[in-house]
Amino acid sequence: MRLSLHTDYALRALIYLASMREDATTAAAIASGYGISKNHLVKVLQRLRDLGYVETVRGRGGGVRLTADPEQIRLGEVVRKTEVFDEVVECFNPERNTCPIVSVCRLPRGLGEAVEAFLAVLDRYTLADVASNKDALNRILGR
Amino acid sequence: MRLSLHTDYALRALIYLASMREDATTAAAIASGYGISKNHLVKVLQRLRDLGYVETVRGRGGGVRLTADPEQIRLGEVVRKTEVFDEVVECFNPERNTCPIVSVCRLPRGLGEAVEAFLAVLDRYTLADVASNKDALNRILGR
Repeated sequence: MRLSLHTDYALRALIYLASMREDATTAAAIASGYGISKNHLVKVLQRLRDLGYVETVRGRGGGVRLTADPEQIRLGEVVRKTEVFDEVVECFNPERNTCPIVSVCRLPRGLGEAVEAFLAVLDRYTLADVASNKDALNRILGR
Repeated sequence: MRLSLHTDYALRALIYLASMREDATTAAAIASGYGISKNHLVKVLQRLRDLGYVETVRGRGGGVRLTADPEQIRLGEVVRKTEVFDEVVECFNPERNTCPIVSVCRLPRGLGEAVEAFLAVLDRYTLADVASNKDALNRILGR
């Protein structure tokens, strides 16, 4: 079972933004803190901006920042929006499915409920919950 | 979010074996029924044999069959055994992880609970539950 790197990086970016002391930061700083591709992170931040989680501040000391308090951001909601769920198994995507029993098989319903249970657990966590040790996070992320 | 093709094929093979009327069948028949690679399916059946879910019957009319009633086989147990869970996100695999905040981040705990909830739902389903429309399954699978 795997989540996409896109979701992984989105969660890392949100944790970075939730734990920092300064008002805004740059994609380069986040990418450097995690040792990941800046190009990839820029795309992830663009997506988080389209979703309304981050905004760009212009001018000196500008960069990106959260649009809401970390207490208000539920991880289940983030993962629902960043992750693709029609790839759990082949038959979740009607356009790509080749499995002939899809119309009579009862597995998709069970797997669908399992995915919902996965997300329901993440709905119980806010961004503030997972980024709560700010001092330790800031130390490691080089701030 | 995606499960491996290995798990997908393992579940399909088990559904095939649970719904068939004959005593045993061949990898070729299962692969043909689903229109999937026989070579890949042979490996999946080997794994299901190692796990004790299927056995090989020798001689005329031989092939593979389930070792237990479909009512006894819980899907959560199957998926726990066929799926790799240290790839959910990078930090689930200590040997491959490069994320520097792993020691202080509280995300892995939340994701771990979410994975457990996913499996707990599948534990509520048996192979018999998902392969219950035998007539329809057999019609589609060409038996």
